[in-house]
Amino acid sequence: MTYTARTDIALEARTMYMEASKIEGEIDGVEVDVSNPLENTTVTRVKIVSSKGAECLNKPQGNYITIDIPSEIYGEQTIYEEVCRIVAKELMNLIPQKEKSLVLAVGLGNRNVTPDALGPAVIDSLLVTRHLIRYIPEEIDERLRPLCAIAPGVLGITGIETGEIVRGICEKVKPSLLIVIDALCSRSMKRINKTIQISDTGITPGAGIGNNRMALNKETLGIPVIAIGVPTVVDAATITGDSIDFLIGDLKENAKENEPLYKMLETISTEDKYALIKQTLSDNIGDFIVTPKEIDKVIEDISRVIANGINISVHEGIEFSDIDRYK
Amino acid sequence: MTYTARTDIALEARTMYMEASKIEGEIDGVEVDVSNPLENTTVTRVKIVSSKGAECLNKPQGNYITIDIPSEIYGEQTIYEEVCRIVAKELMNLIPQKEKSLVLAVGLGNRNVTPDALGPAVIDSLLVTRHLIRYIPEEIDERLRPLCAIAPGVLGITGIETGEIVRGICEKVKPSLLIVIDALCSRSMKRINKTIQISDTGITPGAGIGNNRMALNKETLGIPVIAIGVPTVVDAATITGDSIDFLIGDLKENAKENEPLYKMLETISTEDKYALIKQTLSDNIGDFIVTPKEIDKVIEDISRVIANGINISVHEGIEFSDIDRYK
Amino acid sequence: MTYTARTDIALEARTMYMEASKIEGEIDGVEVDVSNPLENTTVTRVKIVSSKGAECLNKPQGNYITIDIPSEIYGEQTIYEEVCRIVAKELMNLIPQKEKSLVLAVGLGNRNVTPDALGPAVIDSLLVTRHLIRYIPEEIDERLRPLCAIAPGVLGITGIETGEIVRGICEKVKPSLLIVIDALCSRSMKRINKTIQISDTGITPGAGIGNNRMALNKETLGIPVIAIGVPTVVDAATITGDSIDFLIGDLKENAKENEPLYKMLETISTEDKYALIKQTLSDNIGDFIVTPKEIDKVIEDISRVIANGINISVHEGIEFSDIDRYK
Amino acid sequence: MTYTARTDIALEARTMYMEASKIEGEIDGVEVDVSNPLENTTVTRVKIVSSKGAECLNKPQGNYITIDIPSEIYGEQTIYEEVCRIVAKELMNLIPQKEKSLVLAVGLGNRNVTPDALGPAVIDSLLVTRHLIRYIPEEIDERLRPLCAIAPGVLGITGIETGEIVRGICEKVKPSLLIVIDALCSRSMKRINKTIQISDTGITPGAGIGNNRMALNKETLGIPVIAIGVPTVVDAATITGDSIDFLIGDLKENAKENEPLYKMLETISTEDKYALIKQTLSDNIGDFIVTPKEIDKVIEDISRVIANGINISVHEGIEFSDIDRYK
Repeated sequence: MTYTARTDIALEARTMYMEASKIEGEIDGVEVDVSNPLENTTVTRVKIVSSKGAECLNKPQGNYITIDIPSEIYGEQTIYEEVCRIVAKELMNLIPQKEKSLVLAVGLGNRNVTPDALGPAVIDSLLVTRHLIRYIPEEIDERLRPLCAIAPGVLGITGIETGEIVRGICEKVKPSLLIVIDALCSRSMKRINKTIQISDTGITPGAGIGNNRMALNKETLGIPVIAIGVPTVVDAATITGDSIDFLIGDLKENAKENEPLYKMLETISTEDKYALIKQTLSDNIGDFIVTPKEIDKVIEDISRVIANGINISVHEGIEFSDIDRYK
Repeated sequence: MTYTARTDIALEARTMYMEASKIEGEIDGVEVDVSNPLENTTVTRVKIVSSKGAECLNKPQGNYITIDIPSEIYGEQTIYEEVCRIVAKELMNLIPQKEKSLVLAVGLGNRNVTPDALGPAVIDSLLVTRHLIRYIPEEIDERLRPLCAIAPGVLGITGIETGEIVRGICEKVKPSLLIVIDALCSRSMKRINKTIQISDTGITPGAGIGNNRMALNKETLGIPVIAIGVPTVVDAATITGDSIDFLIGDLKENAKENEPLYKMLETISTEDKYALIKQTLSDNIGDFIVTPKEIDKVIEDISRVIANGINISVHEGIEFSDIDRYK
Repeated sequence: MTYTARTDIALEARTMYMEASKIEGEIDGVEVDVSNPLENTTVTRVKIVSSKGAECLNKPQGNYITIDIPSEIYGEQTIYEEVCRIVAKELMNLIPQKEKSLVLAVGLGNRNVTPDALGPAVIDSLLVTRHLIRYIPEEIDERLRPLCAIAPGVLGITGIETGEIVRGICEKVKPSLLIVIDALCSRSMKRINKTIQISDTGITPGAGIGNNRMALNKETLGIPVIAIGVPTVVDAATITGDSIDFLIGDLKENAKENEPLYKMLETISTEDKYALIKQTLSDNIGDFIVTPKEIDKVIEDISRVIANGINISVHEGIEFSDIDRYK
Repeated sequence: MTYTARTDIALEARTMYMEASKIEGEIDGVEVDVSNPLENTTVTRVKIVSSKGAECLNKPQGNYITIDIPSEIYGEQTIYEEVCRIVAKELMNLIPQKEKSLVLAVGLGNRNVTPDALGPAVIDSLLVTRHLIRYIPEEIDERLRPLCAIAPGVLGITGIETGEIVRGICEKVKPSLLIVIDALCSRSMKRINKTIQISDTGITPGAGIGNNRMALNKETLGIPVIAIGVPTVVDAATITGDSIDFLIGDLKENAKENEPLYKMLETISTEDKYALIKQTLSDNIGDFIVTPKEIDKVIEDISRVIANGINISVHEGIEFSDIDRYK
């Protein structure tokens, strides 16, 4: 058995592929564009445009936008609002603007497992309006678009695939767009709670943890699906593998002039690495995660950024003070 | 405008009707049977057998079982288990025993509003098995019946009628039975968290608080619907009205020989009473509830009794120690 | 046994005394001053200046400031900040400004019982600085004053009087001022979560619920004690008693020309009323409270107003954006 | 700068020292005794009997008992109760049995940071009796011993050293014994939530995370201090360092006949390793922890085992059913 570092972030998958295949320049079938709408804030748009590109990154064709947010965000109201607006703007670019048609937001994950509670936390902060527009239309601010939302819980709690629940609800409420929010897994510590990824290719609930479940995307649901996520954990096996690779890299560097030595280092196989990782984790590969100590607070903070990004993009023209008032 | 004391408990509705109409003997179209399966534990079976009875009690025809549980339940493991088994037995009497067909449990209410969190709390303690039976059937204890469960959240949070969500899910997973759990409203303090009502007539989510929403019952869903509830609050207006009635009663008693006085007391109208209630509650009729101080703990305790009642009745032959092991 | 409506609010105690004793003009030994620093916001300063006044209101001599906050507060950031500043200003008037000396804030109440969780919730939102000023003084914003804080839990959980815990801590950290925060009980629905009371007379933990415990005040601790509270509940017996009084009042009004009825109403004793209340509450007087349905959210909101009032008054010159940054 | 794997478990410190120093037989000044009171349950008693032993293990002289609990514990009530009794028995061996004198339990850690919430969670499940014995002595079960308890919060929240708070309270309530509960850090995944360590040498709050704070022990408090802990996390740097060591070990094994390689591996310094760890963790050494995904549930489960171990050892003769009744 071998081990591959896990990531849900397309930008990281691209870097990993480029490193592994040692290619120069961009991967065939992948387009990348970088901008800095704000100091310390980077927006990277990865576009997979061919099946070749999709294969290299092991992700469906489509848009993957990575917003690296500044650490000052929680200390300055103006920076905070600016970042929410950047999230909203990127969302709006992907959201088909059918005049005030219904949007359904789905928060994936388990609200009782802190690093997995991002989705449910975002749902709790959305400005949900479908019922107001239906039952008291005369009192409604005309900027509001019908939005409904659910955090259906995970398979282990409900016994039902999230895909089945969402399909069932879609057939009843008939949204024109689905926005799915989920906690992601990154391969690097530095992205933990610092990166928001938005994509238009949908999501497979629980895919991140090795289960192959019913996908939520345009093919399965018949409507566009926007996925928003933040990496909240790194797999413990990933950082273990990283440190092994770094050491091997260093040793090779030093061994350049020593032919037999270099060769021996070359023979370390992925199976060998997997055995080392297993040894390090006391055979519990897959059961452990690496996470910041303050994960409870961190999930609370970033979930509000995403919720407000959605609120502003769905309800066009709404202000922060309006959101407070309507909630 | 007038005011009527609110109750979701059929047994209380019967008493109220009997008092108001001053009838002797049983109400036409209502049958009542009382038993004491355990010391300090009373099971009262109210059966509404005609449309006349349904009209009097303002509830659909069917069975309403009230289990008054003893206060010793949380201090003695044996009494606790015994009461769970009584709940299970009453449930089994109502549950059509289609050989191992799927059961769906739905926890109504808002998990962030303590007195309304009964339904979601029960869902968290159920022994959900549908996914296990589907994905690892070979490892499954044969006493287990497929059970799935969801706490969909309330209209104000999701923007979607609970009825729409449940119907959507039912069409996907096709259960043969629905069990719905909800916090109820009683008209008397003494039932708060002390009474479990089980009925086979379904439920209308949010009906308790004055909204008329899509009912969950055999007519709307095509499958039997068992509703389980516990009164967790009394409407503040109800106890206010009670104290007014008790005072008028006392005064009338004293005024029996004083014709004009008695007459004057007779002229106190329901409108007058409503005005008094409004005055007492500073115009906030409907916004306030009466609840025990320790409501958080109380909801946690009783939700486990209901969950285990469901676990034992659905998974026939299962023991308490099994439930602990499988959870 | 008799029953007296319970209140922790001096302004209500004054009104109750004036009604009961039917006095015109102000109570001897009590001074009252009313102002409106903001639309829909009333600040009432009740000053008890003599032992006679203290006896009438059943409260120690000193200042009791009642801030009635507008319902718009949670929808408008500017109103919200304005109200926090009003709270801060009233606090500053009572806080002796010893140059940067240590302040200890104590949050009373049980964090696991929602209506009692105000104190602990405020503590969680304070900008605590004592440790920073001690351990990294060179990095500290000079506007910050040393503030430390504790939510010690209630007697039923700790087995220790809050007064003992606070005295023990005071002897170690030697604060120059104590600020105590607690959930209060009011006699009227309309003040629930709408009124902040600030006083300089200290507090007796658990006094509100009939226990006579060690007081926290200048006499017992040797330093000034500011108490801040918000009524979060009304005793169920209080509203029951209210409705009885309102009915008797109405009947008396109507009975003016009916000598026997008026007489009979006059004979209703406090014992009679107590019996009626007991009957209404199924003998559970003292165990039930009246509270808004949305109590969880309400406690969260108002605790932040109080915490920011304290933050701004203790750390002179600090801005809202600073509080966000330092937390 | 160098890096040393962190552990709070004496048994691990012993193994690490033995590996590092390559000694055969036991460390001088350390005595070890192993027993298996139950299948799959191992009790290891490490006794540090000299200053030499204390230096080797970097821990004060005294007793360190490690209970490795079986994974079946949460599925079988009988195993669960048996393990609680083993914890109680080991505690009783260390607790000086002064006839019914007061015990104070202190739960260290931050209740809002899940992996650090063990201490507060244990406090919530203790059978606290001091107030009952003081205020209603005539109603008290004579097996009960006075027990009081507090979870004072962490320095970052309170601004006060835990040591100062505990000393202040001790001077007021004058306990004859202190029991301190805290989440620990282990160096190995396999102990996470599977090992309970009991020691009679006290504890230094926050020591685990690199702060040197006021110790809680017999020297500072004048009474015996029992510390109970469970490792809930492994430092991310520790597992990173582990995988590096495992790789170097493997390479050395293979390089035995390859002189230059072996030499090169020998030259890898602790500074080199530290640099590799830093690289792996994106410079965030110390900010990340490795933890099981289901940490919330795990803390809840194990805290109850410890609480019942304390309950049974403090209140001699008490049964599980009594604990339920009194809580």
